Amino acid sequence: MEEFTAVGKRVPKVDAVSKATGRAQYIQDVKLPGMLYGKILYSKYPHARIVKIDTEKAKSLPGVRVVLTGEDIPAIRMGVYKDNPPLKAGKVRSYRDEVAAVAATDPEIAEKAIDLIEVTYEALPAVFDPEEAMRPDAPLVHEDHKTNILKMPWSLHYGDVDAAKSDAAFNVEERFTTTWVTHCCMGTSGAIADFDHANNLTIHTNTQIPSLAQKDFLETLKALGLKNSRVRVIKPYIGGGFGSKLDTYAYEHVAILLAWHARRPVKIMFGREEEFVATSTRQPTIIHISMGCDKEGKLLYRDMSMVLDNGAYTSWGVTTPSVMMMPITSLYRVPNVRYVAKCVYTNNTYSQAMRGYGNPQATFAIESAIDMLAEAAGIDRMEFRRINCNQPGEVTPQGFRITTCGLPECIEAVLEKLQLERPKEPGVGTGVASLIHVGGGARIYKSDGCGTIIKMDDYGNANVFTGASDMGQGADTILAQIVAEQLGIGVDNVNVIHQDTDVCPWDVGAHASRTTFVAGNSALGAAAKIRKRLLELAAQALEAHVDDVVLREGSAFVKGSPAVKVPISKLLRNAHFTPNGEMMMADYFYDPANENMGRDFRGNMSATYSFGTHGVRVRVDEATGKVEILDYVAAHDVGRAINPLLLDGQVYGGVLMGVGYALTEQVILDKGRNMNPDFRDYKILTAKDSIPLTPVVIETIDEAGPYGAKGIGEPGCVPTAPAIANAIYDAVGVRIKDLPITPERVLAAIKKKKGIDSCGIDPLTEKEQPCE
Amino acid sequence: MEEFTAVGKRVPKVDAVSKATGRAQYIQDVKLPGMLYGKILYSKYPHARIVKIDTEKAKSLPGVRVVLTGEDIPAIRMGVYKDNPPLKAGKVRSYRDEVAAVAATDPEIAEKAIDLIEVTYEALPAVFDPEEAMRPDAPLVHEDHKTNILKMPWSLHYGDVDAAKSDAAFNVEERFTTTWVTHCCMGTSGAIADFDHANNLTIHTNTQIPSLAQKDFLETLKALGLKNSRVRVIKPYIGGGFGSKLDTYAYEHVAILLAWHARRPVKIMFGREEEFVATSTRQPTIIHISMGCDKEGKLLYRDMSMVLDNGAYTSWGVTTPSVMMMPITSLYRVPNVRYVAKCVYTNNTYSQAMRGYGNPQATFAIESAIDMLAEAAGIDRMEFRRINCNQPGEVTPQGFRITTCGLPECIEAVLEKLQLERPKEPGVGTGVASLIHVGGGARIYKSDGCGTIIKMDDYGNANVFTGASDMGQGADTILAQIVAEQLGIGVDNVNVIHQDTDVCPWDVGAHASRTTFVAGNSALGAAAKIRKRLLELAAQALEAHVDDVVLREGSAFVKGSPAVKVPISKLLRNAHFTPNGEMMMADYFYDPANENMGRDFRGNMSATYSFGTHGVRVRVDEATGKVEILDYVAAHDVGRAINPLLLDGQVYGGVLMGVGYALTEQVILDKGRNMNPDFRDYKILTAKDSIPLTPVVIETIDEAGPYGAKGIGEPGCVPTAPAIANAIYDAVGVRIKDLPITPERVLAAIKKKKGIDSCGIDPLTEKEQPCE
Repeated sequence: MEEFTAVGKRVPKVDAVSKATGRAQYIQDVKLPGMLYGKILYSKYPHARIVKIDTEKAKSLPGVRVVLTGEDIPAIRMGVYKDNPPLKAGKVRSYRDEVAAVAATDPEIAEKAIDLIEVTYEALPAVFDPEEAMRPDAPLVHEDHKTNILKMPWSLHYGDVDAAKSDAAFNVEERFTTTWVTHCCMGTSGAIADFDHANNLTIHTNTQIPSLAQKDFLETLKALGLKNSRVRVIKPYIGGGFGSKLDTYAYEHVAILLAWHARRPVKIMFGREEEFVATSTRQPTIIHISMGCDKEGKLLYRDMSMVLDNGAYTSWGVTTPSVMMMPITSLYRVPNVRYVAKCVYTNNTYSQAMRGYGNPQATFAIESAIDMLAEAAGIDRMEFRRINCNQPGEVTPQGFRITTCGLPECIEAVLEKLQLERPKEPGVGTGVASLIHVGGGARIYKSDGCGTIIKMDDYGNANVFTGASDMGQGADTILAQIVAEQLGIGVDNVNVIHQDTDVCPWDVGAHASRTTFVAGNSALGAAAKIRKRLLELAAQALEAHVDDVVLREGSAFVKGSPAVKVPISKLLRNAHFTPNGEMMMADYFYDPANENMGRDFRGNMSATYSFGTHGVRVRVDEATGKVEILDYVAAHDVGRAINPLLLDGQVYGGVLMGVGYALTEQVILDKGRNMNPDFRDYKILTAKDSIPLTPVVIETIDEAGPYGAKGIGEPGCVPTAPAIANAIYDAVGVRIKDLPITPERVLAAIKKKKGIDSCGIDPLTEKEQPCE
Repeated sequence: MEEFTAVGKRVPKVDAVSKATGRAQYIQDVKLPGMLYGKILYSKYPHARIVKIDTEKAKSLPGVRVVLTGEDIPAIRMGVYKDNPPLKAGKVRSYRDEVAAVAATDPEIAEKAIDLIEVTYEALPAVFDPEEAMRPDAPLVHEDHKTNILKMPWSLHYGDVDAAKSDAAFNVEERFTTTWVTHCCMGTSGAIADFDHANNLTIHTNTQIPSLAQKDFLETLKALGLKNSRVRVIKPYIGGGFGSKLDTYAYEHVAILLAWHARRPVKIMFGREEEFVATSTRQPTIIHISMGCDKEGKLLYRDMSMVLDNGAYTSWGVTTPSVMMMPITSLYRVPNVRYVAKCVYTNNTYSQAMRGYGNPQATFAIESAIDMLAEAAGIDRMEFRRINCNQPGEVTPQGFRITTCGLPECIEAVLEKLQLERPKEPGVGTGVASLIHVGGGARIYKSDGCGTIIKMDDYGNANVFTGASDMGQGADTILAQIVAEQLGIGVDNVNVIHQDTDVCPWDVGAHASRTTFVAGNSALGAAAKIRKRLLELAAQALEAHVDDVVLREGSAFVKGSPAVKVPISKLLRNAHFTPNGEMMMADYFYDPANENMGRDFRGNMSATYSFGTHGVRVRVDEATGKVEILDYVAAHDVGRAINPLLLDGQVYGGVLMGVGYALTEQVILDKGRNMNPDFRDYKILTAKDSIPLTPVVIETIDEAGPYGAKGIGEPGCVPTAPAIANAIYDAVGVRIKDLPITPERVLAAIKKKKGIDSCGIDPLTEKEQPCE
């Protein structure tokens, strides 16, 4: 008999049919009785004083219930640095600044009212380049902050980098840049705020962090003087998160403020343009890296500094340097490390968490530089990686305790599956890049925990209330499988209750690829309590020793004698319907044994780490610069594949997001203004851009993980860009150091390499045109 | 400092404002996307063969999605005897028989389609009188049952009644009758059935028994071949239950069948007439009682037999004789008891549970006869009751273990508060009657239990998932008070999660006045687990012994030093936000230590018993027979008044329901047809009929109850009718033995007593007219 019945199976997402048929209720579908519609007026300037706001015309428009400006609201500050009021007063600092808001009986009236609000601005000099913004004479985005450079502690130094640098046989030193990209969730943002008569707030909102959002909203209620109000956060089905919903946004607080003033529920719903403009991006970086090795190719040091364009306000994006440290200190063995990062206020849009959380930027620089260093040392790139490869049981300079580590196997798998050693064709090249990521949660908050409550019914079904937030990644399915496996019931017999802070226990949120690991362990812990009791009851019923009882496919039987079985539903009913009866309920709060990093950034941030290696074969069209992906292998150490189907989905989705990051995606800001807020001009990969991908699963069965699993939500998009950049170099000998790697950039590099100061044929003159 | 902060307080209902402002969502308010509307076609005959049903015209009406008849559905049988299919095939047995059903895109179309269904009947001889129905030649309601007399075990004999009868110094022997009355819930019945794509059913329905209804609906799904489907029952706010929602009804199963065929949600919503006609009543009874005492007034025996008009089908009404046994064996001390009851099928409407569950009928006969016996024995009626009064610690012949018993105090309280000894005015009289009822649950099912889950948040709030069903009686408020008291937090900090079988643990249902006792003990048990942990945490924080810590008003402090305190919210956060943190969650399943009565009906049915005495002063208009209530005292042994405000409400509501039962209410059936299905012709008491009521609370602090409380939901309506009947006798010397005691009946009795064979002045001739 096979070991597992639920874990390790390609179980389709439990909500797949609901979503495909439209039964699943997204925020778009939620309507409350008496609901008003809110709209937000955004700034017309990237940086300006607000001289006057005239709301009279808007207020007198029939159907308008509330008009609010920054002057009408109490002191509420969002963001990591509490620098962002939901409606701005005094001045605006970016085009996405919220200046006023309206609630009206229908969305068209609200829109019209927004147009009727007259704002008088006095433009101020603005700054859009983080390096310029660091100059002492740069316009200040936040005057009270005195400088545009954020006071952040992102600086670490392990070993002696300067000494290692002078000892190194080979060195590389390079500058890389990455730009804005955004999450492009299929479901746009929205929220409905609703007060009851005891001034308790219910808010339906697209969030990855129901428990932390609850805390943010409580702060807003406190600012309104509502000190004893409760907040209930209900997360409807979400069409993608990717980190975009890891913080609360102005629109959510504005919905609350409007609802409070209107004494009616208020819904704010973003369209696609607003989604592009008024939600946050991945942070652009300017990266300096130097790295060196000895004659044998052993890495001696890594020295990196970064400037991050933070935009006008702080959100979690400002903390991404903490995660960037992870590959910088711990991807491959490197004894001496120095890193410093500066986040800089500009009048651009502000940045947020996004899948990988800084890791894609850092890994782009590191893995590009690894190839360059291997070449400089004259060592095969795969051999170079083998020499420096992380190994199980090691402790990295930052203090990460690597337990299981499948990186060696990932490297070999890519070598083999991508046939890296087959003869090279002209214009075709291969590239590889590896990754390390947190795979066992990441303690960035006071608790990295997740709670679960399980309640069995009399029919062998389990209702599971989890803190976890399914945002499309399939968390509900994974948890259902884990619980089903523990209890010996079918996945269909498990009902995972969706996130509602009244019903579901606390969880820090869906980030850091932590859900399968942390929420999985939590669900497992609760299920294990019930399992224990079921085994006792079964042992009694079967007159067997508890250790000999098997729970499987809805029945209990004695190991080796599956024919004589008692249904689990019957065990439950017998326990229930007896004098002094019992019902099977259990709760469990799991907080992983990972560590908050101290001020020195040392500590075992995660209970385990994920590894992976991607390999790609590309063809580069030397006439156009266009890069075609011929083959892609993504090998990941996942601990255990709880659900290979969903795992493939995570890897495929991650890689495609990585390919977009590498080749096509870019939020184009022109002096702070978003120039491509739509899917015609912002180029995400779509179904027609699908690539031939071979996912390779390396199972290392991590002791700390639920059934041995590690987190795998983010890794898919981490090493894609450097793998592609390395493949392009391998194909045509040009090293692109700036993302995205557009055909224009490739072509310009090819031309430059060939000594041609021209950039293609001008379609009008039919002559070669000079490069920029 | 006062002992309690939440228990014993007049806390307004937690949902009062929501209900008053229309925020609370009743089934009337619930709409699902794509929902269809269902309607039911009822029989045109009280008893007939269905020859043919032609649904063609109905089916071809645009907007009609499904038309079903009894021939189209699988074998589904509702009712205690499984004698009631949701749609009838072959024959109809009453006017309320469901013959066909329609689902259409709007309710008007459904109504029109119902009218288009052509049913050909062949009328059958019918029987409407239970005594006639018992004759061997009576038409059979259910042919396969061979007789109309239900095979029920309702027969008991303790001691030797015949010997006691011959020993008795004084005897009475009488016949009493009661008729149909109905619950008159302000919220009419309705349900929405909704299948998901995995064939799991969600049903929103007005029910007092979500867990048992879930089981019934699972049976219906099984009949449809859906063996692995889950059922989720959601109870919206309910506008009154009173027992009417203690069983599932045809309309709920019909909604499921229609939804299954339509693959769309289907809502069936009753209007008032349908509510009157197609929901169930209290069962009419014909009661023979004989009772005797010795010379000192000590009761020697009670001998009762009953015939109950069951109507055409069985529901819980058929089991009311089990509860009737309680006062028959145990109201006052009576050593020899005999009881036999026959439930008889007729072609009338069928009966259900209703507040008191047989107790009002039985107590009407018993307490009327007590007064008659006291008079025969020449003993003051109060003294007679004192002589025979139940006492704490006694075990009744049926095996009820009386623990606390405040009946002596209730009798004295009525004597005093009603000033029973003040001089008698002409035409004015006083009457009293007592009651015993279950006060600690009633084990009528395999489990009498209730589960609770409590989850604390970081802010000192408790979310309580209870199995209990608030149907307007205030259960949520009582549970919030109990949890608040245990945890030392405010009632406002407790959020009771409404009944949803996915979220809330199992409970047998809201019946037998069991919710405060059973659900209260369950909530207390769960809260006590959290309290224990909070006390430990507080002891640690305050550096005190755990026994010295007080939890009160949101803080913990050392007994006697309330100034030095730590907020409970802080204790929670400190426990949560620490390595290996914890969250406060707890579950508890409480099943009272009461007993299933065996085949001999012996056993301690309830964990404790409620007692009470009502006294009433009436003025009887001898010219019209009209009875006016001048004063009313209702004294109840409630164990502990958890919430005196809600308790007053329960008593006031109960008494008014009892007054209606005594004087005005009657479902008038004319050969099985309901002649008064509206509030113009069915006379419930309304605000203008309010009576001067003094509720008296006797607290006996029962050891088994939560904070000493007993159930008090039903008792208010139990002794009202005999108290009034006794007062009428006291006022004008006529004994009315048939309910309701209409002016016509009183007048006829007065005339008969006076030897006048006339019944008032004919308004046209202005002469006395003969009685019927």
